[in-house]
Amino acid sequence: MLTNIEHIGIAIKEMHASNALYTALLGVPPYKSEGVESENVITSFFKVNQTKIELLQATDDNSAIAKFIEKEGEGIHHIAFETNDLQAELERLTKEGFEVLKGFPKPGADNKMVAFLHPRNTNGVLIELCMEIQH
Amino acid sequence: MLTNIEHIGIAIKEMHASNALYTALLGVPPYKSEGVESENVITSFFKVNQTKIELLQATDDNSAIAKFIEKEGEGIHHIAFETNDLQAELERLTKEGFEVLKGFPKPGADNKMVAFLHPRNTNGVLIELCMEIQH
Repeated sequence: MLTNIEHIGIAIKEMHASNALYTALLGVPPYKSEGVESENVITSFFKVNQTKIELLQATDDNSAIAKFIEKEGEGIHHIAFETNDLQAELERLTKEGFEVLKGFPKPGADNKMVAFLHPRNTNGVLIELCMEIQH
Repeated sequence: MLTNIEHIGIAIKEMHASNALYTALLGVPPYKSEGVESENVITSFFKVNQTKIELLQATDDNSAIAKFIEKEGEGIHHIAFETNDLQAELERLTKEGFEVLKGFPKPGADNKMVAFLHPRNTNGVLIELCMEIQH
């Protein structure tokens, strides 16, 4: 089951300016910044009630975020839904005809296991599923 | 103050197919469908915890949704933040350098007064502010 919209990911070019912009918009600064080396991105998180805004800046031209910005410009990159059982949800959604992007699930930002659904089956929306990693 | 991500608006071409798709994704059907004649759209709403997914289909080629899909294809159209005092927030954000789109605030879907910020000041993200209309 998808229990919450955990975050909305926004592809941006320059973190310093975008942190200032979203701080002005939301009235609060980011509560966390974090690099995800495997994805060649740095991230910044803002909390709004039970959902987060995740800013994503590429650190490398090969990053998916760099390619997205080259093609589409800055903007909303993905919606992430939270689940308590990632494997069961991926199996359920595969049966429903959704496709899980290759190489997932794997560890992402913010102590989560993450997987993405192919946007060709979701009205062009890149959908992430994520689950907190239990230590 | 922006207190919640009230909904995420997704531009889609054909409501019947997209209602089926998001019902399969979320495991629950839309709880409401509604036309907004002034915007030439029909909408469909799904609830996920404290946030909604709003599907938007144009009913006319002049609709902003038809123009968006022509340019960008189907996909995420806007993020809507909830506020308890729309006028005060618009004044605050204008002082911060954001621009309110002309013709807003005005009544939108789901019994809300709505206004949009120009995406040229928000990293390409179309941001809606909305406030419940009190009767």
